[in-house]
This record gives sequence, structure tokens and C-alpha cells, in this order.
Amino acid sequence: VLSDNVEEILNDDRISIIVEATNDTKSAYQYIKRALTLNKSVVTANKALVSAHFEELSMLAERHHVSFLYEASVGGGIPILKALKDEVILNDISSITGILNGTCNYILSNMFNNNTTYNQALNQAQELGFAEFDPHDDVSGKDTQRKLRILATLGLSTSIKEKDIILHGIEQISTLDIQHIQQLQSTCKLIGEVVKHSDHYYAVVMPCIVCNSSYFSTVNMAYNAVCIRGSHIENLTFYGAGAGASPTADAMMKDVLDVAKGGTLTKSPLKNNPLLNRNETWKDFFYLRINSNNPKLVALIKVLADQVLQQEKQLIILSKKIEYNKVRAILSKYDIKSEEYFIARIK
Amino acid sequence: VLSDNVEEILNDDRISIIVEATNDTKSAYQYIKRALTLNKSVVTANKALVSAHFEELSMLAERHHVSFLYEASVGGGIPILKALKDEVILNDISSITGILNGTCNYILSNMFNNNTTYNQALNQAQELGFAEFDPHDDVSGKDTQRKLRILATLGLSTSIKEKDIILHGIEQISTLDIQHIQQLQSTCKLIGEVVKHSDHYYAVVMPCIVCNSSYFSTVNMAYNAVCIRGSHIENLTFYGAGAGASPTADAMMKDVLDVAKGGTLTKSPLKNNPLLNRNETWKDFFYLRINSNNPKLVALIKVLADQVLQQEKQLIILSKKIEYNKVRAILSKYDIKSEEYFIARIK
Repeated sequence: VLSDNVEEILNDDRISIIVEATNDTKSAYQYIKRALTLNKSVVTANKALVSAHFEELSMLAERHHVSFLYEASVGGGIPILKALKDEVILNDISSITGILNGTCNYILSNMFNNNTTYNQALNQAQELGFAEFDPHDDVSGKDTQRKLRILATLGLSTSIKEKDIILHGIEQISTLDIQHIQQLQSTCKLIGEVVKHSDHYYAVVMPCIVCNSSYFSTVNMAYNAVCIRGSHIENLTFYGAGAGASPTADAMMKDVLDVAKGGTLTKSPLKNNPLLNRNETWKDFFYLRINSNNPKLVALIKVLADQVLQQEKQLIILSKKIEYNKVRAILSKYDIKSEEYFIARIK
Repeated sequence: VLSDNVEEILNDDRISIIVEATNDTKSAYQYIKRALTLNKSVVTANKALVSAHFEELSMLAERHHVSFLYEASVGGGIPILKALKDEVILNDISSITGILNGTCNYILSNMFNNNTTYNQALNQAQELGFAEFDPHDDVSGKDTQRKLRILATLGLSTSIKEKDIILHGIEQISTLDIQHIQQLQSTCKLIGEVVKHSDHYYAVVMPCIVCNSSYFSTVNMAYNAVCIRGSHIENLTFYGAGAGASPTADAMMKDVLDVAKGGTLTKSPLKNNPLLNRNETWKDFFYLRINSNNPKLVALIKVLADQVLQQEKQLIILSKKIEYNKVRAILSKYDIKSEEYFIARIK
């Protein structure tokens, strides 16, 4: 039975599960809201939509005793959300860390393994269908931010929105950065991470320098990986196809089967005591390249760094463990624009 | 409510889920059979028991419309069986590959990373509680064989028993082997693998030489990892704590929650057309060390090998892709005893 009329589907009492696979966030939101209100379960892969309306749609499903499932929206074919929901019941989750965007991982793998430039790697990703014509949402880290927002809210039982997550993408990475990172026996991955400490958390999407013997360095091309740490489970890591028609369809069908089997009624992910966002005090080791040789900037930055290299008109810094906010303050004081620097965490 | 009387538990109609956590395979089998017959669901971590009576207990649970769950029996805290059961419904599973024994992985990691001998590594593992007083079931590969038997039966919907799996453990690995493997920029892991081809499969537990940039080389100490390949899911890999009280308890409690939520009634894992075992034609590249310098053996083995090294009274071979059966035939012809050689696959 085929229909191109959504009303026909919504008003058919025999239909109890709706799979939303449109590419339109706005109307999909309206369809899903109505479907849940009409006591129909909904399965979607639309991460922009889930990110934008996660709490509202979850609570709506809870009120109507139906399921709202979105496994395919995070980690492609990896059954990470189902596993995370199970672990949240039994564990105190202390962190979630992941390579969540296949496009960025494809570009970075290609640059590091085949010595291509950023533009060559991006073009190739577009030709092979790993990147869209407008790759902005992927390379800016926005897509990773949406997925981390969903994982973090589920894992920490606190509403953690896109705005609560520090965001840096991979667009500014240069061949010079690659050379320096390779000299550190390391590679670079775009990583989303949320870390919980007693009553607060921090959340970041940022390129990360990971050493060549580490687990994340083995995650290549369009693959994704997610690591959950919990009080009982210790470290639990999932690796799999981050995108693609078959893995996405597989993830959606797993949701459909779960609804059909019953027993997976959606509950609001939020609990009573929300955690505080403490991004403003977040500290780490940073790699920073700035296209500037302003002597005052150099003097200031030397205080924060173990190593400062000046190469042509560029400044390359491996920082001590410092507050991210200090880095931001310096960049802003010297009016360094986003296209004039590249920043990465050193893991 | 505490009781040390199993009859009291079995005859209590208010009890609908029994968690079996004894260390006694024989009586546990009787308890579980009776519990299922009395329409009670059962959760166990006892892999020897599950391996010995998997099909029978699953079918008994199906007949009585209850659940028989054993997540903790394979991969410790990793929710691999639940995920595999989901994927089997949607995918044609083509292979399952895993590091499934924390004791062996601890010993091998220690030997490779800290240059300890096998006995030093084993003693340390025993002191730290990663190996039992009698480590035979672990180091012989028996424990991995049991776990692979469960994974393979579930994944291929065919009864694959311990006897259907080629078995070599890690007991014979020597410092000389380590040196040679390190020269190949590689490390060694005990890996269980089942691979399906149209109407047949092969299944092996054997030390594997994996290169230092591969995923499995990053799985260290008592950790486990399992990789499932399926028609839609492509490659899905899980990594986590392979043993330990907390991860095991977490896995058992996930089973209890699944029973409590309903919707996880056990079905027989077997389907109509059983696959054929074709271990006898299985081919691979092998690393083989034999404590012999019998000239006839050397001549014979040179035909099978790209590289033959004679060092002191030992013969070290990196084979071409050859039938495992040929290696066995040669070892048997020259009456090479199990303590006189070490064999590994080259991945």
C-alpha cells in the first residue's frame, strides 16, 4: 500500500508504528508530534529534528504510552542508544566520548594516510558520497554537536543542548598541522565528549590529537566509535558504520522490531537534579596554530605553552594544561578570526 | 529474604525470575531445567553450562514461554548477545571474530608490552585475580571455544558445538616467538572466529598475529572485543571489560531488566537448514615454531613456507596460504607433541 498523503497515514487506526524518513525537519516535527498524540509509535533517523525537540517529543511519547525511537540518528548502524539506555538504569555514567561524524573522519583519515590537502580530501569525500554538496554541518562539527547533545542528555539524565557544547570543527586544519601532529606519532580525529563530575559536567566537540597506538586512531574512513564509561560497566566501546543506507535502515528496523516486541515505551530522559554546565572552567592540553606573528601575542602565549614554534608567519603552540577560556580570551583580545587559527585537544 | 534451600525458591509461585550464580555446572543444570519447566525465567553467567546445554535449555524456555538469558557468559560486561540476537533477525551474519578471554589477553599483553616470560605473566595474572589457580580452561583456549560456540550458534542459527571448533591455546608461546612476532611489527592475540560461506562455515580458536596498526592490537589486558559482520550492518565491533564482578553483575542485571520489561521470550536459536562444518578445508597463513631440526621435516616444510628459519634446534616458518589439515598431517607424521610446537594464524 503506497500513499503520498500523510493524513491518510495519521488517520488510519490500523497503523501503530510510523517510520519517519523524510529530509525535512520542520514538517517532520509536525508529523511526529501528531503521530505521538494519536498514540502511534514513531521511529526516525532525523538527528537535527531529534536534537531540536528531544525532551518535548520524549515526554509526549511517555504521556501517550508509546515509543519514540531514533537509534539511527547517532552512530549510524551502531546500537549505541539502546545500549546507553540500558546502562543508564544500572550505572552512574561518568563520560561519553565518540567519533560521531563519518564525513570528518573520512577527510581526516585521507589527509593523514594519503597526504592529501583538506580540499582534495573533501572533494573525494563528495565524489564518493561521504560528504554532501554543502558539507558545512559536518565539517563545522555541528552534526557531531547534535549527536553529542542526544547522547549526553540520555547518559547524564540532564537536558544538554547544542548551545551547552563547546564547538570547533575541522575546516581550518592545514598540511602544516598534519606534519606537526605526525611528528608527535599521532593522528587527528574530531571527537565529541561529555564528562561528568559529581554535580556538574563539561561538553566539547573539538579536533583531538590521539597517539598512533590508541584505540581512536584505529577508527578510520567513514566509521564511527563511541565509548561509554560507567560505575559498573567500566569502559564499553562500540565501533561500526557511521552512515550509509544499509546500516541506517538496519538501525531503524531494530527500532521497529523493539516497538513490535513491546516493552520499550519511551520515558523522559530527564531526572530530578539537573547537572550544572561548567564549560567555563574546563581545562586541557591544546595544540594551537595561529596565523600571526604579533610579538605581543607571542609573549602572552609563551606563558601558557611548553613549546612555541614560529614557522613562517605562523605560531604553533603545545600548551600546558590550561583553561579553554584563557585561550578564547587571547584569541579574542588579538581579534584572531576563525579562519586564522586551528585548535585541537591533545588526548 | 535469604534461603539456602533451592526447593523453597523453585516452589515459590511469587518468584518468576531466577538468577543462577553458582559455580557448579552439574547441579545448576538441574536447577535451571526445573525452573524453566516451572515457567520461571532464568538468568545465568555460567558459560560452561550454557555451552553444554544451549539448545536444550533454549528450546525448553521457548516451550514454556519464558526467558533463558546468559549475557554475562560471553564478553563479560559487553552486551554482545543481545545485539547479536537483534542483528540476526535483520542480517545474514558472515563472520564473528573476538578476543573473548581476559586471562589470555592479560598474559599476552604483559609478555608483549613488558617483555615478561609466559610463567611470569601467568603468575602475575594469578596474583591480580585475572587468572585462576588452575588456569587450564583459559590458557588452553577452552573458555574461548565455549564462548565462540555460543556466539556461532546464535549468529549462524546452526548448532555449532565445542567439538566443531579447531582449538589451539597460548600455553606454548615462547620468548623466541615474541621476538619474531615483534619483528613483524605485530602482536599476538587469542582469537575465536567463525566464518560463513553460503552453505558451510569454519570455526577456529587460535593465537593470531595481528599488526600493530590493527584494531585488535589495541585491545589490551583483561579487555575483550567482538566483531560481527553482517549483510546490512557491515562491521560492528564491541569492546569492554571481559570479566570482573561489576561488569558481570551489570550484564546479569541487564538480563533481569529485560525479563522484567517483557518482550524477550527465548526462542530456539536454530533454523531449518543447518550449515555444514568445513574445518577440514580451512586455509590460512600460519606462523609455526617446531622444536625439531629433523632434516626430512625441514625439507617437507619448506614446500609450504615462504620463509623457513632455523635457530638453534628450532624451526620457524611463515607459511603460504595452506590448508590447516596439511600442517596437522605433518605434525602428526613426525610425531610432534603439543608441547613441541607453537602455531598462530597471521591475520
